[in-house]
Amino acid sequence: MNELMVKAESAKKASYKLANTSTIMKNQALMKIAELLIKKEKDIIAANEIDVGNAKGKGVSGALIDRLSLNPKRIAGMAEGLYQVASLPDPVGEVITMWKRPNELQIGQQRVPIGVIGIIYEARPNVTADAAGLCLKSGNAVILRGGSEAINSNKAIVAVIGEALKESGLPEGTVQLIEDTRRETVVEMMKLNKYIDVLIPRGGAGLIQTVVQNATVPVIETGTGNCHVYVDCDGDLEMGERIIVNAKTSRPAVCNAAETLLVDEKIAAEFLPKALKTLKDMNVEIRGCEKTRALFSDAKPATEEDWSTEYLDYILAVKVVGGIDEAIEHINKYGTRHSEAIITNDYNKARRFHQEVDAAAVYVNASTRFTDGFEFGFGAEIGISNQKLHARGPLGLKELTTTKYIIFGNGQIR
Amino acid sequence: MNELMVKAESAKKASYKLANTSTIMKNQALMKIAELLIKKEKDIIAANEIDVGNAKGKGVSGALIDRLSLNPKRIAGMAEGLYQVASLPDPVGEVITMWKRPNELQIGQQRVPIGVIGIIYEARPNVTADAAGLCLKSGNAVILRGGSEAINSNKAIVAVIGEALKESGLPEGTVQLIEDTRRETVVEMMKLNKYIDVLIPRGGAGLIQTVVQNATVPVIETGTGNCHVYVDCDGDLEMGERIIVNAKTSRPAVCNAAETLLVDEKIAAEFLPKALKTLKDMNVEIRGCEKTRALFSDAKPATEEDWSTEYLDYILAVKVVGGIDEAIEHINKYGTRHSEAIITNDYNKARRFHQEVDAAAVYVNASTRFTDGFEFGFGAEIGISNQKLHARGPLGLKELTTTKYIIFGNGQIR
Repeated sequence: MNELMVKAESAKKASYKLANTSTIMKNQALMKIAELLIKKEKDIIAANEIDVGNAKGKGVSGALIDRLSLNPKRIAGMAEGLYQVASLPDPVGEVITMWKRPNELQIGQQRVPIGVIGIIYEARPNVTADAAGLCLKSGNAVILRGGSEAINSNKAIVAVIGEALKESGLPEGTVQLIEDTRRETVVEMMKLNKYIDVLIPRGGAGLIQTVVQNATVPVIETGTGNCHVYVDCDGDLEMGERIIVNAKTSRPAVCNAAETLLVDEKIAAEFLPKALKTLKDMNVEIRGCEKTRALFSDAKPATEEDWSTEYLDYILAVKVVGGIDEAIEHINKYGTRHSEAIITNDYNKARRFHQEVDAAAVYVNASTRFTDGFEFGFGAEIGISNQKLHARGPLGLKELTTTKYIIFGNGQIR
Repeated sequence: MNELMVKAESAKKASYKLANTSTIMKNQALMKIAELLIKKEKDIIAANEIDVGNAKGKGVSGALIDRLSLNPKRIAGMAEGLYQVASLPDPVGEVITMWKRPNELQIGQQRVPIGVIGIIYEARPNVTADAAGLCLKSGNAVILRGGSEAINSNKAIVAVIGEALKESGLPEGTVQLIEDTRRETVVEMMKLNKYIDVLIPRGGAGLIQTVVQNATVPVIETGTGNCHVYVDCDGDLEMGERIIVNAKTSRPAVCNAAETLLVDEKIAAEFLPKALKTLKDMNVEIRGCEKTRALFSDAKPATEEDWSTEYLDYILAVKVVGGIDEAIEHINKYGTRHSEAIITNDYNKARRFHQEVDAAAVYVNASTRFTDGFEFGFGAEIGISNQKLHARGPLGLKELTTTKYIIFGNGQIR
């Protein structure tokens, strides 16, 4: 058997043990991992230096090098994240609902771990510890397959995790790294339905599409956010400006940042010149429709492609629309079902926007930037799902579980 | 554009309308479909006769011909099913939970339709009406792709549904049939991620595997049930016999029927000879392990393959095990995570079985046959999911929905 199969079998075996491991034991293991990460910081940084050196040798870009690099502060951040996960409530075991049938059968729906989760990600070694922590707390075994550029860092981190698991009495199959970074191995992993219950790709749109196209294991898609802010004629225009500025500029590289501003034509002349100047002064490039450009000459012309683009950058597409109907239609056509906001004080338009927009999170009078596990109050998350199956929105611990029905009878037959 | 693309676009468009169609309108449409099915019974049966004639001409087997055949009673059954679905509560719009964040954002999790559901099924025309009714009630547009042998029947049924939808003021994209029955078309359908939100294959293991292997659209797997009954040494042996007889023989061809009996060695000599004689007298073929055969000479030898086989027939595999540990291990190794039962009066063993067995439905002292939408109290269902993502167990109306977060703010930025 190759490395993947050996580890997949080991993960499956561990998953049965983990499903019935107490919260106390899981928390102790999380804290032990955090403790050892700090203690073995030098080993991890030494391994990371090899990866960074190799990447620089290959001429990898500065942003990627930054994501790949570890230092004591970042390792402390990983440890801190694990302590936080330990402090969150354990979702496993909750009986969500329980009822009695006319024949006296009692049927309870109980939250249980999914089993074995496969995480496929890029060269960001912090994901290794984050994902391991969330999977462990939710009672799942995890198989990690990180980007090849981070292989030495990941090996060092997983070695530390393995040591902590051993000291905590948890099976070694709990957290494993696939060290074979060949493409055919990751494709094989995507088809291991017998051992892996769900795959979660973490990374850019290209990675996610590769997994969706190749996997036979069920996938939870995370990520792409082509988010809109629609400023309605009945909205508070100052609030509208504050919100689009926040949604666009507070952290442009994340999926809940706004990419397109839609403005009701009735207030476009009043709203756009001032709001777009504010944005431009903050170094945001404006790409506008014709009406926008007539009101704000610094705007470049927007093409059809702009409406579909997740810039993840200081660029904003702007379109003047006829009103809420056109806004909703535009969002449902071009959006990626992530986070969408309306600014309005009209009760009926607020209600329609909530109901008619098809997205994971639909906001009235708030920034799209709140779609996040911490902001929702879930704590750490493994990503934001914008697919419809299983879980939509921030994927916290609860979303890393499934349910089973536990049925109490006294001899019922059918 | 080909038929599939035209219908897929039409379904997507309809899905936005349906998501915001009132329960009253949906119920009226369901009842109108039921009414017209009865009224146009002759047209449907005439179309069905062509299919049945073609199938007989090809030498199709009796059981398949039976499933394919429609008659007034079966059409009345389809109509009755639609009236029942109309009488069920509408899951759409329910706000499952709502909370307030420290910054006064109110976040509600609201149940909404999935969008467009693709149903891929075999030559069973009753599925056409059943699936259409469940999808419509849950606010989803549906694209049906039935077995080619039933094409004329399906066309006739969908024509009636279309007429009823039109009279009810619902979009024609609500329920559509793919009439092109070529294999490449169904494969194309499985990859239409842009238009189809989820695929539900309904049929045998071969069909389901084909969909899982080929689809890039998320799939809900239904079906395979290699279910076990474990009779423990602390169980009521009469109850054990009653339950295994019920689980095996009340309807052997369904997925919640038992396929393997596991018996604690401590009571095997007391339990097996009598229980297996009862089963044999009911024409059940027994395939036993060596210990079973020593106690019941009419048993044929069971092979390794028997432990993994879903017979769907009057055949039962029987194994004597050392106790609950071996029983749980066997079930988690060979089971298909569907429905599993223990017969015991021991509190701790009942608790362990519930917690340690990995299946959609885990029973103490009841027959596995209860895993069913009606028996659970959900009403009609579209299948039993034994995968872990999204929904596990009977897929009723609620399981045909997803959720979105609706967020009420008053100017919050991050």
